[in-house]
Amino acid sequence: MPLVRVTLRKGRSFAFVHEVGEAIHAALVSQANVPADDRFQVFDEVDADRLIAHATYGGVERSPELLIIEITLNAGRTVEIKSNLYADIVRRLGEHGVRPDDVLIALVEVTKENWSFGGGRATYA
Amino acid sequence: MPLVRVTLRKGRSFAFVHEVGEAIHAALVSQANVPADDRFQVFDEVDADRLIAHATYGGVERSPELLIIEITLNAGRTVEIKSNLYADIVRRLGEHGVRPDDVLIALVEVTKENWSFGGGRATYA
Amino acid sequence: MPLVRVTLRKGRSFAFVHEVGEAIHAALVSQANVPADDRFQVFDEVDADRLIAHATYGGVERSPELLIIEITLNAGRTVEIKSNLYADIVRRLGEHGVRPDDVLIALVEVTKENWSFGGGRATYA
Repeated sequence: MPLVRVTLRKGRSFAFVHEVGEAIHAALVSQANVPADDRFQVFDEVDADRLIAHATYGGVERSPELLIIEITLNAGRTVEIKSNLYADIVRRLGEHGVRPDDVLIALVEVTKENWSFGGGRATYA
Repeated sequence: MPLVRVTLRKGRSFAFVHEVGEAIHAALVSQANVPADDRFQVFDEVDADRLIAHATYGGVERSPELLIIEITLNAGRTVEIKSNLYADIVRRLGEHGVRPDDVLIALVEVTKENWSFGGGRATYA
Repeated sequence: MPLVRVTLRKGRSFAFVHEVGEAIHAALVSQANVPADDRFQVFDEVDADRLIAHATYGGVERSPELLIIEITLNAGRTVEIKSNLYADIVRRLGEHGVRPDDVLIALVEVTKENWSFGGGRATYA
């Protein structure tokens, strides 16, 4: 059910993109009760100058390697779960060389009736 | 008012993309009380390996031809309307060769004050 | 905290894209209480035929130069603030040659716990 969209600058290897996807999904499974086979991810690669991010907002030091991770998911996770999710995404991405300050995450919450995962059915309704 | 974003792999013909857009819009008009001239759609084509989807989650059989359809629309549709919308999108896409299992739909609901359709006005407020 | 995604046809100059980003951000700062250094923007450029918009819905006259501006931000702005934001975005874009009717804006509201602006922290929680 989560639909993950990762926006990053063009030019990273596919191996890297794949590792990023694995790390984000593993964190969702580990921290947010997402089933292991519930993985749906899109990677939007844009020219570096089409991705504008303030270098220090929020008390961090961003680089051009910033990853913007937008996750659409069902509402209902607690603040604690969300916090743990952010920390775990960053920890797992760190294992692949991503700096913690280069991870921006935004969650968009929807209701369970808002998904159809195939066959024209309201999967969770 | 719906803003539709369809993500699909690169390489499909423009004729196909156009048919997909027509089918989705016709379903919105038919099932979700969307005006016929209220059509706004973006097609995001990504390299096939930048679109990761589990092959069977939700009890279906997905192929690389998966369409991810994200629809931002005003809140308030009932579960029945949403279910009918999913079924009708899939039925109409099927007329253009899209397999039912290759259609993933996610709705993001907003309030009517959240749109400006031109001229800097809050169109529905 | 706002995350801004602008979808436009391919082929505009980087100078124009940059001006668009500056104008939108200035309006957010001026009208919606967004900190000056809280700027995060992605520009999605698509082939012109991948961006479908009805020419007159909403009582305007759209051209192929349409900008679709999606803003994910914290919930809580009043209708008046949103209306002022739309008007100010259009006014500022107008200074760079954008027609008012070629500006479509959609707001997606989330809660403050839904953001991590780096370091794996829930920035506003």
